[in-house]
Amino acid sequence: MIKIALIGSGNVAQHLIKAFDKSEFIELIQVFARKKETLENLFDSDKIITDFSELKEADLYIISVTDGAINEVSRQFSFQNKLVVHTSGTSSIEILDNKNHRGVFYPLQTFSKNKTVDFSVIPICLEAENQNDYTLLETVANHISDAVFKINSEQRKALHVSAVFVSNFANHLYQIGNEICKEHQVPFEILKPLIEETADKIKILSPGEAQTGPAIRNDSGTIEAHLEYLTDDNQKNIYKILTQSIQNNGKKL
Amino acid sequence: MIKIALIGSGNVAQHLIKAFDKSEFIELIQVFARKKETLENLFDSDKIITDFSELKEADLYIISVTDGAINEVSRQFSFQNKLVVHTSGTSSIEILDNKNHRGVFYPLQTFSKNKTVDFSVIPICLEAENQNDYTLLETVANHISDAVFKINSEQRKALHVSAVFVSNFANHLYQIGNEICKEHQVPFEILKPLIEETADKIKILSPGEAQTGPAIRNDSGTIEAHLEYLTDDNQKNIYKILTQSIQNNGKKL
Repeated sequence: MIKIALIGSGNVAQHLIKAFDKSEFIELIQVFARKKETLENLFDSDKIITDFSELKEADLYIISVTDGAINEVSRQFSFQNKLVVHTSGTSSIEILDNKNHRGVFYPLQTFSKNKTVDFSVIPICLEAENQNDYTLLETVANHISDAVFKINSEQRKALHVSAVFVSNFANHLYQIGNEICKEHQVPFEILKPLIEETADKIKILSPGEAQTGPAIRNDSGTIEAHLEYLTDDNQKNIYKILTQSIQNNGKKL
Repeated sequence: MIKIALIGSGNVAQHLIKAFDKSEFIELIQVFARKKETLENLFDSDKIITDFSELKEADLYIISVTDGAINEVSRQFSFQNKLVVHTSGTSSIEILDNKNHRGVFYPLQTFSKNKTVDFSVIPICLEAENQNDYTLLETVANHISDAVFKINSEQRKALHVSAVFVSNFANHLYQIGNEICKEHQVPFEILKPLIEETADKIKILSPGEAQTGPAIRNDSGTIEAHLEYLTDDNQKNIYKILTQSIQNNGKKL
């Protein structure tokens, strides 16, 4: 059994708790939360700690807190020479205090409360300072996911920025679609198969090949009609900039 | 059997040919294409016509051409008082010549060559000038799809603009993600489960509830790091504008 202590109670931490819970090879011995209540429906209350001094001996300490707090948390540990990792897409491995072995355990997924995810398909990006530590992280990751990647801090940054575009920003476009539908009393439901197919296409076509719509067709009549139809300046602006970007990209291909 | 003649050979027309081909209740009697070769792998060559004068008697004529050509095509028909529809999301029903009964048969989906789609889940938005015509369109639509909606020209415009945001623009964000990955030698594959989950979330959460990432968290450290990391001015600009839009939206909620 690999013993893990987890620090954090946010979305990523909560999904990790559930994933570790399913594995017979991983024992989550403790979880640190600032407020015990946050995790009480999810984890054995006796093992939720609110003070770092209560942390017990583990094979791996996973810090899953906001980027701004990672360094501070890593410095509060009283032990040394243990393996400590964070789960952040943006932060370098070096943000961790070097009194312990450092590493990164970054599950690349969008986690929301009230939406379960199948952890086995979530890519986990790993980084460590030496081979032994990497092997331990790999063993843990392989127990909860079928998609484990060795990714250094520089590559992880690229992935995280890309993830913001393909996920956070894409979701915001869904929200704009939802707003336009609401404004004109059309059920947003009608767009859901389209959203699904757009994401599904990427599995077999490159995004360049998959691009459709008035921008790539240079259909200026439709583009003008859409801009006239939109009433919100922010929506108009986003429409213009993304249309232009698609058209410039089309020229580059 | 309902007899249909189809005018057009683009993506929508080609997917309609395949969908009608599967139905035992619909007979596609002819397809008009400017170039016969375009459809020769898809449809009986003898029934592909290149001259409107060859059009035979049908219950329904479907015009699936670019928006700019719909009116002209509808005026070239020599017959009158038949049911003629277009498949466009943007064009009004009134763009069709009124010597025939007019209607709209708009399948709301993104069609690409080399990617088959399951037509049964594609929403088909219908409009007609009278109940008889509507019933015929509904019968045809029900034979190829399980999601048929009565949508007027004004509502259809809202759907089409929304579709551009949630599909064409979302796909362009996938392309930007792909470019960033390429630039930093990271496989774009790693992002595919994230793209899928982001689309999947929308089935059970509203886009507002599903929003995650540095913008909605007001995580200015990460936002600044990302902007510094991006080397392309266009990417930077899109990042800024969508971040701001998410943050303004967050305030409205």
